[in-house]
Amino acid sequence: MRCIDLNTDTGESFGRWTLGADEELISFVSSANIACGMHAGDPLVMDRTVETCRKKGVSVGAHPGFPDLQGFGRREMRMTTKEVESYVLYQIGALQAFCGSFGLRLSHVKPHGALYNMAATDMELALSVARGVARAGNDLILVGLAGSLLLDAADRIGIPRASEGFCDRAYNPDGTLMPRSSPGAVITDISEIASRAVRMVKDGVVLSSDGKEIPLRVDTICVHGDTPGAAKIAKAIKEALSENGIEIVPLPKVLAVRSPRQ
Amino acid sequence: MRCIDLNTDTGESFGRWTLGADEELISFVSSANIACGMHAGDPLVMDRTVETCRKKGVSVGAHPGFPDLQGFGRREMRMTTKEVESYVLYQIGALQAFCGSFGLRLSHVKPHGALYNMAATDMELALSVARGVARAGNDLILVGLAGSLLLDAADRIGIPRASEGFCDRAYNPDGTLMPRSSPGAVITDISEIASRAVRMVKDGVVLSSDGKEIPLRVDTICVHGDTPGAAKIAKAIKEALSENGIEIVPLPKVLAVRSPRQ
Amino acid sequence: MRCIDLNTDTGESFGRWTLGADEELISFVSSANIACGMHAGDPLVMDRTVETCRKKGVSVGAHPGFPDLQGFGRREMRMTTKEVESYVLYQIGALQAFCGSFGLRLSHVKPHGALYNMAATDMELALSVARGVARAGNDLILVGLAGSLLLDAADRIGIPRASEGFCDRAYNPDGTLMPRSSPGAVITDISEIASRAVRMVKDGVVLSSDGKEIPLRVDTICVHGDTPGAAKIAKAIKEALSENGIEIVPLPKVLAVRSPRQ
Amino acid sequence: MRCIDLNTDTGESFGRWTLGADEELISFVSSANIACGMHAGDPLVMDRTVETCRKKGVSVGAHPGFPDLQGFGRREMRMTTKEVESYVLYQIGALQAFCGSFGLRLSHVKPHGALYNMAATDMELALSVARGVARAGNDLILVGLAGSLLLDAADRIGIPRASEGFCDRAYNPDGTLMPRSSPGAVITDISEIASRAVRMVKDGVVLSSDGKEIPLRVDTICVHGDTPGAAKIAKAIKEALSENGIEIVPLPKVLAVRSPRQ
Repeated sequence: MRCIDLNTDTGESFGRWTLGADEELISFVSSANIACGMHAGDPLVMDRTVETCRKKGVSVGAHPGFPDLQGFGRREMRMTTKEVESYVLYQIGALQAFCGSFGLRLSHVKPHGALYNMAATDMELALSVARGVARAGNDLILVGLAGSLLLDAADRIGIPRASEGFCDRAYNPDGTLMPRSSPGAVITDISEIASRAVRMVKDGVVLSSDGKEIPLRVDTICVHGDTPGAAKIAKAIKEALSENGIEIVPLPKVLAVRSPRQ
Repeated sequence: MRCIDLNTDTGESFGRWTLGADEELISFVSSANIACGMHAGDPLVMDRTVETCRKKGVSVGAHPGFPDLQGFGRREMRMTTKEVESYVLYQIGALQAFCGSFGLRLSHVKPHGALYNMAATDMELALSVARGVARAGNDLILVGLAGSLLLDAADRIGIPRASEGFCDRAYNPDGTLMPRSSPGAVITDISEIASRAVRMVKDGVVLSSDGKEIPLRVDTICVHGDTPGAAKIAKAIKEALSENGIEIVPLPKVLAVRSPRQ
Repeated sequence: MRCIDLNTDTGESFGRWTLGADEELISFVSSANIACGMHAGDPLVMDRTVETCRKKGVSVGAHPGFPDLQGFGRREMRMTTKEVESYVLYQIGALQAFCGSFGLRLSHVKPHGALYNMAATDMELALSVARGVARAGNDLILVGLAGSLLLDAADRIGIPRASEGFCDRAYNPDGTLMPRSSPGAVITDISEIASRAVRMVKDGVVLSSDGKEIPLRVDTICVHGDTPGAAKIAKAIKEALSENGIEIVPLPKVLAVRSPRQ
Repeated sequence: MRCIDLNTDTGESFGRWTLGADEELISFVSSANIACGMHAGDPLVMDRTVETCRKKGVSVGAHPGFPDLQGFGRREMRMTTKEVESYVLYQIGALQAFCGSFGLRLSHVKPHGALYNMAATDMELALSVARGVARAGNDLILVGLAGSLLLDAADRIGIPRASEGFCDRAYNPDGTLMPRSSPGAVITDISEIASRAVRMVKDGVVLSSDGKEIPLRVDTICVHGDTPGAAKIAKAIKEALSENGIEIVPLPKVLAVRSPRQ
C-alpha cells in the first residue's frame, strides 16, 4: 500500500499577531513544521503549538528561517555558511526543548521561506543547513524541495532526507517551482489541488505549466496554512488520497517503507 | 576537603560587538554561564563559546535573560509567569543543541540580570524560572543568589539548586546585594575581593556594608567578566582559594559532597 | 457648539502580520495615532497608514511605545528617564518624516500601552515622555489619560496637552481605568458605549463601576481598533455625538475652542 | 583653493556594546554619518552622538542600513524597492528629530554596509535609496561611492549628491573597491593612506591594485572609525591635506565651490 506524509507550516503567529488556523489544520496533517522564533513564532507560540501537536498525535518538525521577523524570513539574506549552520542548530535546539518537555521527539527539519528556496539551488548553503541538522543528532530528517540540491546535501552529509511536493503550486518544465509572484503560480481550485496530490503519489508525476507530465517523487506534500480556506483544501486532499488507497503517515514511516535510496 | 565552584557569565558578545575576555576568563573558572541570544549572544557566539568551554574542560550552564538586547537584559520587564517559563525553556534548549554537538551535557542554569534579581524576591517569577528549568529535564542545577527565593522555588519544584555569592559586591545587613548604582556597591580592591572569597567558603560569612559578619553559604562564586582587569581578579581569587586548601570544582561535584539539603 | 476629537490607535500591523481594520476605522475618527516601529508598525506600514490618513483628511499623531514587539508594548519595562526621552523622540522623528513627505504636519503624540499606563501614575516617567515630545518641537499635543500625571507633566514642561476618555472601558470610583483583566472592564454593548461618549462630552461625567457619576473632562475619546466590530462601534459613537449636536474635530481645533486651561 | 570633506561612520555602539572611538574621531572630520538604529545605534547612542557633533561643530549625516543588528548591516538582504525607500526615510526621520532638538540641520545621507555596496551596482535599489532621501526633503546630499550607480540615481531623482573615496582601501582597475575579504584590500600603512588621500584631492586619481593611475573625482573621503589606530590615521590624513593646501570643509561647502555638475 502506498503512503505519503502531509505536512503544514505552523506556529507562525508572533506575540499579539496571529496567523493561520493552526489548531484546525494540524488535524488534517501527519507532520507539523513549527517556526522557531527567527522569522516567526515566539516561545509562547512554540510551547502552545507543540502541545497541540501532542494532542493531535502529529509528528513535529523544526521550521528554521532567516533571522528576519519584519520580512517573515522571505527576504534573501547572505549569511556565511558557518552562520547558517549555527542559526539552524540554534532553532532546532530551542524547539527540541519544548518537544522533550511534552515527551515528544523531533522528527524532521524543513527550512522556511528564502532559506528553503536558496538552499534548493546553492550547494554551499544547502550543505550548511545539512550540517546544522546533522549536529543536532537524533536522526532528524531534512525536508527539501523534490529534485533540489538540499536533498543532495543531506546525502553528502549522510543524514536522512525527505522529498517535498506542492500540490497547490505550478511547476516549471524543469521541475522547479514557479515563483509566487508569477501569474498562475498558486493554484486555488480545490479539486485540481486534490487531484495533483493524488497523481504525485500514485504516478510520481506533476503537470508542468506547459501541460506536460514531469516525474516527481515525493515523500511529503505541503499543505499551506495561510491560504484562505486552508482547512477545506487540506480536507479535500486527505479525502482524495484516502479514496485512492493512499495512507497518510508521518515521515519516519514513509521513509521506512521506501527502498533505502529511491 | 572544602570545595567551591567558580563561575563566570560569558558569551555576551553580539554580532559585530564584542564584550568580555571570554577565552582568558574561562581558563580560571570551573563553570561558564553562556548567554542564549535574548539579552546577548547569538548563534555564532554561542557555538564558539561552547567550543571554548569544551577545550578548557569547563562546565557549561545556560544564562537566560529577558528578551531585551538594547537593555542587555538589565531592564525589569513584567512578563506573565507562563511567558517566563517558556522563554527560559527556549533559551536552555538552544544552548543544549550546541553542547550536544560538542559532546557536552549542560550542567546548570543561571538567570541573567534583571531576571536574576527579580526572581530573588518574587516567588511567582522564581517558580516560573524553576518550572522552565524543570521542563528541560537532565537534572539541571538552578543557580540563584544565596538566601533568595529562587532557591526556595527550586526546592518547591524539586530540582537541584546552587547558592551563589559575589565576592566583588557589597552586601546589605539583611544579606541582599547592594544595588550596583549605590556608592561602594562594587568592590575593586583585588586583595579584598580574594579574601572575601576565601571567607565565604571557609567561614560561610561575608562582611556586610556596616562591617558585621553575616552568614552566607555558597556553592559557587561569581567572577565578573566585564570588569576591567577581570582576568587578574579571577587569578587572584583562584590563588587565594588554593592557598587556603579550597579546591575549585564544577557545580555537580560541589553539590555531591554536600549534605542532601544544607 | 460643543466639539470633541475621536482618536484611534492604528498602523499596528507588522511585516506579514496584519492587525485592525485601519482603512475602515480611520473613516470614522478625526485623529489617528500611528505606531512607530517599536511595539508595532514598520516603515512600510507607517508609510501606508500616513497615506491613508492624508486621503481621509485625518489628523496624524505618533503612538510611541516600549521597544518590545513580542509583548506589543504591553509589558512594563523599567527604562531610565533619559532612555524614555530618547526613545520617544526617535519614534516621533521617524513618523514625522513620513508625514512631511505627504505634506502633513504631525499634530499630537499619544504613548502606547504600558508606557501610557505607567506614565499616568509615575511623574518621573511622565516628565521623560513630555521632554521627548517637547524636544520634537512643532507644538505637538501630548495626549494622556484624563486626570493622569502625564497631563501634569505636560503642563510642567510647558507643552500643549489633551485629556483622553475611554467610552468602552469601566472606570474605578477614583477616576482611574479598571484593568483590562478585571471582569466587566471592557464594555461591549454598543448603545451603552455610545451613550457614555455623549455624557462625557455633554455633561463631563462618566459612570463609575459602583454606579456613581464622576467628573471627567475630555478633549478626545479613544475608539479601539482591535475590538471585534470596531467599525460598528465607531459609527454608533459618531452618530450619537452628532444627534446630540456635538461636532467631531481634530485635537488642535478642540484645544483652540477651550479656555486656556480648563 | 582646493577643499575636501572628511567623513566618518559613527554612533555604531548599541546598548551595552560600544564600538569605535567616536568622541576622538569626530574631532578630525568635517562630517559624521550617524547610525540610525537598524544596523547599529539606538536612541540613546544617537542622542549622545548628535550632541557630540554639535559640540565639535561637525556636519551631521544619516547612516541608514539594512534592519539587521546581528549582521551589522553587512549581510546582503533582498528587500522590495518600496521597502528600501520606506526604511531609508524612517531612519532619516529618526535622526532628524535628534538634530532638530540640538538646533542642527541634517546635511547628508550615506547608506551603510551592504546597502551602500548593493546600491553602487543595482540601479533599482539605488533609485529606491534616492527616493527615500528625496522624500525627506531639506536638500539632503546623497553620498555614494565615486563612479557608482547611486550617484546616477541621485541625478535622476534630482537631489544633490557627493562622490566618496576611500584612501585606506585598494581599488580594482575598473574603479570599483576590492572586497574587504581579498588580501591587500585594506591598506594599513599610515603614510600610504595619507598620500593616497592627497592624490585623490590634488590630482583626482588613485593607484589601482595593478599600479596604474585611475581617475577618481571625490567630494568626501571616508575615515574608518573601527580600524585600530583610527584616530592616528585621521590625524595623519588631516595633516597631509593641510600641508598640501587642501582645506577640510563640510559637504555643502564642497559642493558649493564645485561647478554645478562636475
